[in-house]
Amino acid sequence: MKLLIINGPNLNLLGKREPTIYGNQNFIQYYEQLKTDFKNIELDYFQSNHEGELIDKIHDADVKYAGIVLNAAAYTHTSVAIADAISAVNIPVVEVHISNIFKREEFRHVSRIAPFCKGSISGFGLDSYRLGILSLLTEREEIQT
Amino acid sequence: MKLLIINGPNLNLLGKREPTIYGNQNFIQYYEQLKTDFKNIELDYFQSNHEGELIDKIHDADVKYAGIVLNAAAYTHTSVAIADAISAVNIPVVEVHISNIFKREEFRHVSRIAPFCKGSISGFGLDSYRLGILSLLTEREEIQT
Amino acid sequence: MKLLIINGPNLNLLGKREPTIYGNQNFIQYYEQLKTDFKNIELDYFQSNHEGELIDKIHDADVKYAGIVLNAAAYTHTSVAIADAISAVNIPVVEVHISNIFKREEFRHVSRIAPFCKGSISGFGLDSYRLGILSLLTEREEIQT
Amino acid sequence: MKLLIINGPNLNLLGKREPTIYGNQNFIQYYEQLKTDFKNIELDYFQSNHEGELIDKIHDADVKYAGIVLNAAAYTHTSVAIADAISAVNIPVVEVHISNIFKREEFRHVSRIAPFCKGSISGFGLDSYRLGILSLLTEREEIQT
Amino acid sequence: MKLLIINGPNLNLLGKREPTIYGNQNFIQYYEQLKTDFKNIELDYFQSNHEGELIDKIHDADVKYAGIVLNAAAYTHTSVAIADAISAVNIPVVEVHISNIFKREEFRHVSRIAPFCKGSISGFGLDSYRLGILSLLTEREEIQT
Amino acid sequence: MKLLIINGPNLNLLGKREPTIYGNQNFIQYYEQLKTDFKNIELDYFQSNHEGELIDKIHDADVKYAGIVLNAAAYTHTSVAIADAISAVNIPVVEVHISNIFKREEFRHVSRIAPFCKGSISGFGLDSYRLGILSLLTEREEIQT
Amino acid sequence: MKLLIINGPNLNLLGKREPTIYGNQNFIQYYEQLKTDFKNIELDYFQSNHEGELIDKIHDADVKYAGIVLNAAAYTHTSVAIADAISAVNIPVVEVHISNIFKREEFRHVSRIAPFCKGSISGFGLDSYRLGILSLLTEREEIQT
Amino acid sequence: MKLLIINGPNLNLLGKREPTIYGNQNFIQYYEQLKTDFKNIELDYFQSNHEGELIDKIHDADVKYAGIVLNAAAYTHTSVAIADAISAVNIPVVEVHISNIFKREEFRHVSRIAPFCKGSISGFGLDSYRLGILSLLTEREEIQT
Amino acid sequence: MKLLIINGPNLNLLGKREPTIYGNQNFIQYYEQLKTDFKNIELDYFQSNHEGELIDKIHDADVKYAGIVLNAAAYTHTSVAIADAISAVNIPVVEVHISNIFKREEFRHVSRIAPFCKGSISGFGLDSYRLGILSLLTEREEIQT
Amino acid sequence: MKLLIINGPNLNLLGKREPTIYGNQNFIQYYEQLKTDFKNIELDYFQSNHEGELIDKIHDADVKYAGIVLNAAAYTHTSVAIADAISAVNIPVVEVHISNIFKREEFRHVSRIAPFCKGSISGFGLDSYRLGILSLLTEREEIQT
Amino acid sequence: MKLLIINGPNLNLLGKREPTIYGNQNFIQYYEQLKTDFKNIELDYFQSNHEGELIDKIHDADVKYAGIVLNAAAYTHTSVAIADAISAVNIPVVEVHISNIFKREEFRHVSRIAPFCKGSISGFGLDSYRLGILSLLTEREEIQT
Amino acid sequence: MKLLIINGPNLNLLGKREPTIYGNQNFIQYYEQLKTDFKNIELDYFQSNHEGELIDKIHDADVKYAGIVLNAAAYTHTSVAIADAISAVNIPVVEVHISNIFKREEFRHVSRIAPFCKGSISGFGLDSYRLGILSLLTEREEIQT
Repeated sequence: MKLLIINGPNLNLLGKREPTIYGNQNFIQYYEQLKTDFKNIELDYFQSNHEGELIDKIHDADVKYAGIVLNAAAYTHTSVAIADAISAVNIPVVEVHISNIFKREEFRHVSRIAPFCKGSISGFGLDSYRLGILSLLTEREEIQT
Repeated sequence: MKLLIINGPNLNLLGKREPTIYGNQNFIQYYEQLKTDFKNIELDYFQSNHEGELIDKIHDADVKYAGIVLNAAAYTHTSVAIADAISAVNIPVVEVHISNIFKREEFRHVSRIAPFCKGSISGFGLDSYRLGILSLLTEREEIQT
Repeated sequence: MKLLIINGPNLNLLGKREPTIYGNQNFIQYYEQLKTDFKNIELDYFQSNHEGELIDKIHDADVKYAGIVLNAAAYTHTSVAIADAISAVNIPVVEVHISNIFKREEFRHVSRIAPFCKGSISGFGLDSYRLGILSLLTEREEIQT
Repeated sequence: MKLLIINGPNLNLLGKREPTIYGNQNFIQYYEQLKTDFKNIELDYFQSNHEGELIDKIHDADVKYAGIVLNAAAYTHTSVAIADAISAVNIPVVEVHISNIFKREEFRHVSRIAPFCKGSISGFGLDSYRLGILSLLTEREEIQT
Repeated sequence: MKLLIINGPNLNLLGKREPTIYGNQNFIQYYEQLKTDFKNIELDYFQSNHEGELIDKIHDADVKYAGIVLNAAAYTHTSVAIADAISAVNIPVVEVHISNIFKREEFRHVSRIAPFCKGSISGFGLDSYRLGILSLLTEREEIQT
Repeated sequence: MKLLIINGPNLNLLGKREPTIYGNQNFIQYYEQLKTDFKNIELDYFQSNHEGELIDKIHDADVKYAGIVLNAAAYTHTSVAIADAISAVNIPVVEVHISNIFKREEFRHVSRIAPFCKGSISGFGLDSYRLGILSLLTEREEIQT
Repeated sequence: MKLLIINGPNLNLLGKREPTIYGNQNFIQYYEQLKTDFKNIELDYFQSNHEGELIDKIHDADVKYAGIVLNAAAYTHTSVAIADAISAVNIPVVEVHISNIFKREEFRHVSRIAPFCKGSISGFGLDSYRLGILSLLTEREEIQT
Repeated sequence: MKLLIINGPNLNLLGKREPTIYGNQNFIQYYEQLKTDFKNIELDYFQSNHEGELIDKIHDADVKYAGIVLNAAAYTHTSVAIADAISAVNIPVVEVHISNIFKREEFRHVSRIAPFCKGSISGFGLDSYRLGILSLLTEREEIQT
Repeated sequence: MKLLIINGPNLNLLGKREPTIYGNQNFIQYYEQLKTDFKNIELDYFQSNHEGELIDKIHDADVKYAGIVLNAAAYTHTSVAIADAISAVNIPVVEVHISNIFKREEFRHVSRIAPFCKGSISGFGLDSYRLGILSLLTEREEIQT
Repeated sequence: MKLLIINGPNLNLLGKREPTIYGNQNFIQYYEQLKTDFKNIELDYFQSNHEGELIDKIHDADVKYAGIVLNAAAYTHTSVAIADAISAVNIPVVEVHISNIFKREEFRHVSRIAPFCKGSISGFGLDSYRLGILSLLTEREEIQT
Repeated sequence: MKLLIINGPNLNLLGKREPTIYGNQNFIQYYEQLKTDFKNIELDYFQSNHEGELIDKIHDADVKYAGIVLNAAAYTHTSVAIADAISAVNIPVVEVHISNIFKREEFRHVSRIAPFCKGSISGFGLDSYRLGILSLLTEREEIQT
Repeated sequence: MKLLIINGPNLNLLGKREPTIYGNQNFIQYYEQLKTDFKNIELDYFQSNHEGELIDKIHDADVKYAGIVLNAAAYTHTSVAIADAISAVNIPVVEVHISNIFKREEFRHVSRIAPFCKGSISGFGLDSYRLGILSLLTEREEIQT
């Protein structure tokens, strides 16, 4: 089983950017840990600040992965194009956010992609990604403690 | 470690009510399964159609549980009083929804309690509760597959 | 054939409360008259100021009555939870209002339950209940003069 | 006692137009049935697609009828002029709709004429007209089953 | 010099309709008085409840009159078509209202035709028409007392 | 094959009215040219300033024409009744506008009929009608150059 | 009979300020002409750029004048305090505007004082003042040509 | 003279809940102090987290008390039903808030009950209750220092 | 201890202006009574219809008074400048209103100064000032009956 | 004569993506057919999921093509930058949409680029492109059937 | 060359008022420094808390100064009258703000005067004035470092 | 000291695009002039039509420059992602606009990046860049004339 994690704009700065909101852990280190933790799954990772590259990657993932864990970051609130890309592919996409977007500025309360995703997870720090992966594992025995 | 699951109005009808949206599994059966799956945790369950009883229960849980998994159902969209109850207690509350509320009627897109919860999980069917429990387990080894 | 009339908050004060808007007839007297008028129907009556009790009663009515005539009063304008309860049961619910709600304050012009009811009747004084009952009698000969 | 039924735009197509919303009964047939059912009342009927003709008819009815059952159809949502005509006459006007307008597109949720009518009835199919007639019969014995 | 007075929907009932708002003088009597008062001007009068007839009349007036005093009544608040007719003709149109529309319901505060008229006069009872006529007389000596 | 062109309010003044927006060609001349250009099609034309007559014509066209090219002009922005008429007939209706309505006043940006038409064409001057006719010719060979 | 004309902010620049909107006539010259034209009336004039002084003057006029012709200029759109002053005095106040405020920027379409005035006149250039004076003369013979 | 103090949801936690907003004094202690301070008045106290119980209590107070000091807490912003209960009783109800609700989140700026109360007092900490009691004492000598 | 009462626009007319809303007591008489009632406090009074003078007075009061009781009247709803003046001084300012502003026109429901005041009191007639003074007396014994 | 067709995000998936909305024809096949049908025109085609590349291409086309047929897809509803690019070039740009965007979700009803295009065509399936090309051919004989 | 700096309400308290927002430098000291720095320019300064005095000063400056640097403070967000004064004079007015108004409360994000000024500068502390002066010096050599 | 100037979409066309709004000077020529004028500063320049490249450049500039002068052009009004990039870096970013964005279409009045920048400068033509550079020079002697 292969899953793809996609991070949107400015998440390449994780660990450096606004640590009071996003924590100070580098995403690559966290990703290595995820790969260790989910040994039975093949995990890939992609980050871009370009809306178009995120769309290209979602298209490209359609035949190759069983699902996508997507943190679209700022594009969450503005991109109809990414929402359409999610609709256009046949694999489930799970929306995740590190911070609780409903605690932040009002413009971050609206997600243009949420209605097109399987589900949404926000507010659990980097653990939101872990929960996103678990949500894509459908066998009960796989996600129990 | 003790956790409390709280279900709000109409969720007592789960399995009977609108199965195309909520599925046809009875919550009590699911709850038994959760207790089996999470053997290391003490899980309790409470359901009420009364906003006031939900508030009373949240208050009451403050000293007794390590966290609450809350599906406030329709009160999600209207209850400032439950939001205030969540603010008033010192344990984390995780908001969960069975359906993806952002795919439904527009009035269900706004959660009055989300800004006061630790985080939100919506759209994964009954698995949203399981993910909610996992999100409250802070030790990494506990939530890996 | 059994029908249930449900009255929401403050309607226990009917006849005392704001007579210029609601008239000065006590609902119980009116209910007795309805039972006399509709001899072929078994009519029951329930009133509560508690949103949760109204929801409980709607659930409870599902197997016992052929329909509900519901005046949700103030909860008409605020309660998603009662709207969900109406959706959750399989019997028709008819919304009634004593006053013409569209002639009153603007916040009373929006009914959160109307989209989930079979139909709505407002503005005919206590006769709104009588029309509500008639609307649930589907045989033509029963509702002709 | 004379009552007038007025139908607004496109209702001449009833039975042909969008039968999933409006049913497939021709209004003239239904009107004949109403005349049979309400033998003690003199019923007249008028239909027009012209806003101005509807206003003229409402004016004209003022001295001749004891009340009007009005389905203003699409003009319900746009016509201040019909609302003013209703205000200008001294007989009661009851607003009726075949479909439950609150279940349909949002622009149909607002009635510009409702605040000027005696009351509103919507959602009971063609029976909405029957209930409208009954609402104009003020003697209790006349409207009991 | 020829001027045309046009009255919109329901103004045929002037004197009968809502006298607390519109006064109890019949417009025809008032019009006769206007003709007596403005002996140097040829005054014509047209009233219709039909939006289309009002448009036809405005078109028709273009070559025949030096200006129009228009009380579009309820169509003031809804008719883009009359506004376009005003734009389409080359003679000045003055908007008049008997009542002060800004003291009434909020939907009467917006005039869709005002931006296309030469000017607006509202609130002076039937004198609004007289002021409207005066506003179209450009020679100073004609409008002094 | 028979097609009907319908023009709404004020379009009888085309060529005279606001030539900077609508050009200075008379529609009848243009219509003659269209008939010459589309020799294989039977073209009819109807214009009215009356909303009700436009509705009557749309109803009447249902059995007689293969489609309608409709420029509802100002009624585009206000008429639910015409929108309902379009829904009520079984032939395709194509919305056309001479000017680009999105470049004009904000109230002209919203079309109440667009959601009920097959498609919309705006901004190409009188050529919008020609494109509207072409859009109703479904055979590829017919619409190629 | 004494009447007071009050001009609000920036109207002291009339004739100099934006002549394409306000014309190029100095108000004092025009006022002299008005005094000549209305020989039977005692006319006074007051201008201030200070909201407070305008209020003081309206208060002060209460016992001394039979009515006020008020061009509140920019304060028209923002001043509740002037609106309250108008309510507080017992003489009629007529709102006038030189330009047609409904043809200008959207923020000029709303008058906070209109609901508290006897009536409103806008769009007739300096003639708006003349019409305002005429509207305060209640005797018919005084306002005929 | 008897007065009733009613506290709404979450105020049972006063002293424990969010002390930076609500202070850290227990309401029962404060209530004892109030009873000591106002020796000439009979003071009762009721708290509930249940909207329905608050309504029941307001109804029940109608014959027994001279007035109510009501802190409806979160229900202030959402409950039409409590607003209706206030309208339905004949004794004055004074709205009080501990914090200045206009300094907090925007959804707390709107009180649905304020228009139905005698008056409102907010922002004086627990002293808001004391001022509320004083506002109900109509004799001047009683409320002077 | 010195306190300052400031009254905004039109309150100089108290007793004369709209007595059904504001009562018919002259403020100066009431102020004399307040000075008699609060013998231990030095009370000063200032009224102006000028926004700028109110701001100047608030600035000026900063070093001289222990607090301000401010009825900003109409400026309540429009003046950011007075709100900023309140923020700029170091003494508490209490907002008072004679009428219950939430029972009046919608534009009076919003106070631009409330978020910057210590607290707000509205609806108690002239007693609102008395309560405002009491709210500034912090010693418990001073404000008991 | 050279024309350029530009397709925006996700249109590379045409034929695969949501066939109930967009049909199941591959755009490249359709483009080949267009080239066959319009033999007298030189047609080029460009597709990108990147907003920036679409802007670059529009700039680049300015000197090379006689016009652009642009389906900006999701960027239609969000991109001011593409709208500015259209304004910046001197060749006409025609907006086309395969589906009738006014029948879909509300956020698709607003086009940020429409006010800057020559005209708009939506709802005719792939034929919208054909009509777009025809709209750019200005000679009458070229676009007749 | 003469320039005028105008400061609006509460800016006389600069250095004392909310130093975390506005800094703690007195404006007069800063103004002296500006005069030293810009030796080639004649700088004048005016401050008032009165909207009317600010308008008077802007009028008065028209013939005397080459431009105005205006910090309208709170009136920025409410004053149409100052905006009109800016339009009425023939010299450029530059809007400046000490704080970044877009980082503060939402009501400070809208400037009613910005559309009438030459340009706007906000967020640079007292340096905003210096930049405002520089923006009025049109010769390139004068504003280089 | 190194500063970076970043220009957003369509600004590569400066001098060619809409000269009535943006002037007809090529930016590269202007940039050369800036480098000559600010000899003590090292100035770099970057332009892209791609939102993602602008974000990449802002990230990249973080360690290399002392500040950024950013004209985000159309992305100003839509890009949360660029706003987040500005928040994520530790150097000051100054927003500049050539035209006064508050004089243009309403959608250009809102800047999504302004709240995250140090300050904003708009309306001074190309001089806005020069002022932006000056605003980043903190030493007083550097920015005097």
